[in-house]
Amino acid sequence: MENVNITKRIRRTHFSLGVQAAGVSSYTLYNRMLLPAEFDGYVDDYHHLKKHVQVWDVACERQVDIQGPDAAHLMDLISPRDMRKMADDQCYYIPVMNRQGRMLNDPVAVKLAADHFWISIADGDFIQYVMGVSDALGLDVTIHEPDVSPLAIQGPKSDDLMARIFGNEVRDIRFFRYKRLSFEGHEMLVARSGYSKQGGFEIYVEGSEYAMPLWDRLMSTGEDLQVRVGCPNLIERIEGGLLSYGNDMNRDNTPHEVGLGRFCNSPLDYIGKTAVETERNIGPSQQIRAIAIDGSIPFCETAMPLLADGKQVGQVTSAVFSPDFGTNVAIGMVANTHWDAGTKLEVETLDGMRSASVQKGFWI
Amino acid sequence: MENVNITKRIRRTHFSLGVQAAGVSSYTLYNRMLLPAEFDGYVDDYHHLKKHVQVWDVACERQVDIQGPDAAHLMDLISPRDMRKMADDQCYYIPVMNRQGRMLNDPVAVKLAADHFWISIADGDFIQYVMGVSDALGLDVTIHEPDVSPLAIQGPKSDDLMARIFGNEVRDIRFFRYKRLSFEGHEMLVARSGYSKQGGFEIYVEGSEYAMPLWDRLMSTGEDLQVRVGCPNLIERIEGGLLSYGNDMNRDNTPHEVGLGRFCNSPLDYIGKTAVETERNIGPSQQIRAIAIDGSIPFCETAMPLLADGKQVGQVTSAVFSPDFGTNVAIGMVANTHWDAGTKLEVETLDGMRSASVQKGFWI
Repeated sequence: MENVNITKRIRRTHFSLGVQAAGVSSYTLYNRMLLPAEFDGYVDDYHHLKKHVQVWDVACERQVDIQGPDAAHLMDLISPRDMRKMADDQCYYIPVMNRQGRMLNDPVAVKLAADHFWISIADGDFIQYVMGVSDALGLDVTIHEPDVSPLAIQGPKSDDLMARIFGNEVRDIRFFRYKRLSFEGHEMLVARSGYSKQGGFEIYVEGSEYAMPLWDRLMSTGEDLQVRVGCPNLIERIEGGLLSYGNDMNRDNTPHEVGLGRFCNSPLDYIGKTAVETERNIGPSQQIRAIAIDGSIPFCETAMPLLADGKQVGQVTSAVFSPDFGTNVAIGMVANTHWDAGTKLEVETLDGMRSASVQKGFWI
Repeated sequence: MENVNITKRIRRTHFSLGVQAAGVSSYTLYNRMLLPAEFDGYVDDYHHLKKHVQVWDVACERQVDIQGPDAAHLMDLISPRDMRKMADDQCYYIPVMNRQGRMLNDPVAVKLAADHFWISIADGDFIQYVMGVSDALGLDVTIHEPDVSPLAIQGPKSDDLMARIFGNEVRDIRFFRYKRLSFEGHEMLVARSGYSKQGGFEIYVEGSEYAMPLWDRLMSTGEDLQVRVGCPNLIERIEGGLLSYGNDMNRDNTPHEVGLGRFCNSPLDYIGKTAVETERNIGPSQQIRAIAIDGSIPFCETAMPLLADGKQVGQVTSAVFSPDFGTNVAIGMVANTHWDAGTKLEVETLDGMRSASVQKGFWI
């Protein structure tokens, strides 16, 4: 944990006052914005998230706004999923790649209109790639980062809390679909999505005017539901196998390696397609696996080597103790020679070697 | 100042042990890497920098490595300066833009060979723009971020310290030129450059093996020169008018607005050229100015509005008290109606209004 100065370059969000008032204890930075990491400790935050409902400042999930006559064509170029099949109220998780088939981001595309899309990005200036492609081809689109701040409502009581504010309509929103609903006469895009496995919504709040009023209403309306301010939880997201771009994958990895090959199915000529199809035929040489680790382990600041018979066969990129499963849960990238479920490995932590084993799947 | 967790996504550098040992008191994050912001307080760091010599961990200045048959063509597309005129040992400050002529970064290009360049970037994933252009056009180049960590030696005694380690040859390196010099038999690229007005060098350290040995040698060899671990200094850089991408300019700004129009002179058809030439003819509507502010001001976390007769005519993006000049020195973006030297304005700080005036130039 280090002290980091806030400047114009390192941004607070429209919800930061609420986050501070709730007693945030540490942050991470994500797209140069503060993203809370912890409030009452990972463990307490985790138990609460699995039982009740939380309000998360995820304004750092910035939007790349693409609009214009060539918007759909540009989306076809950068999306490995067939955008033409997307319903008018749909969101698509799209692993985006460069021509070598290496992951540049793992955003969610939101279709606002036939000629208007948002790409809701993980950490990284994917907007620059989109601009580069568009500029090189001279496409007729405008591309910008709008003042849109996602607010996530996550946890098993999310439907109940949201229904009190937006009406029972929210209950009918299907997974990765959205509705435009009204808060104090102001229309907001509300999607059933979010970075947890506990269910919930993401509200795309435009501008600052309704940001804290919505926040305050959620907190006061949900008092009897034991609503709390929260954030993506390290333990819960590893249990659920939710990958973090920059931690569990980066520009060195392919969609097949991170288990996203199934999303690469567009019949169109998207960027990276040749590399994706070549790797599909020969199979990836390594892939993401759920890893259980024995003993006590330090906070995972950097990748930890995974070894078999003293030789490196992969690395662990996220790891933490899970109270519910009584073991350290981890995400690792493992060579195809050692990725079968049940394979015994060793992890080299800063505190020494630990026994580990490849799991059949994540803890869900 | 906020607590930020270090993870695989938020990186330490190959020099972080040296930075910690020197008692860093706060950081900023830059290209998702720790960049020290302060050691013994801005004021003490500042006086020392102007008098002696400092060693700076600026590993966060990442390189975009571009190599291949089309590398020079790609550089011609993204550089507003005529890359064909670049000497074999030269570095160019290049304001890079999208097709709308809006600044994407303000990096330094380094020519390694006729078909091999580094773009040493300010904060932001400019590598994604370069990849986007290359992928869209199908250029024959490889683009990656190498494991290269710049180390800056800054201050009036820089030549003396560097000569003790790399030999008197360093004294002959001209401004924004480089030489390949040996440290313990290992060749390093040493350029006369750096983010201060006190003179000095940047050493591009490849890999980790020689990083801390070089650091330690600089510190021990320079003891009688009163060498210290330092970092880009907020006061000194504002006095000198050194702009910070993300603070003083961003994707909304043009090169003319930030005073970099003179660097946009390539006769080739670079990206953004039409927009640049159009604005050159009509003149920018706003431009960066040195601003002096009276009274005491709070730390500049966000932009502060600049007002004339109660109406906003610009904003201050960086500001701090300068002991040497006895006033608050600031960088602001000012409308062309109010940018003449001597114009009296008001600045709206979090602690209230302050008098300000447009200066003829920066404090150098």
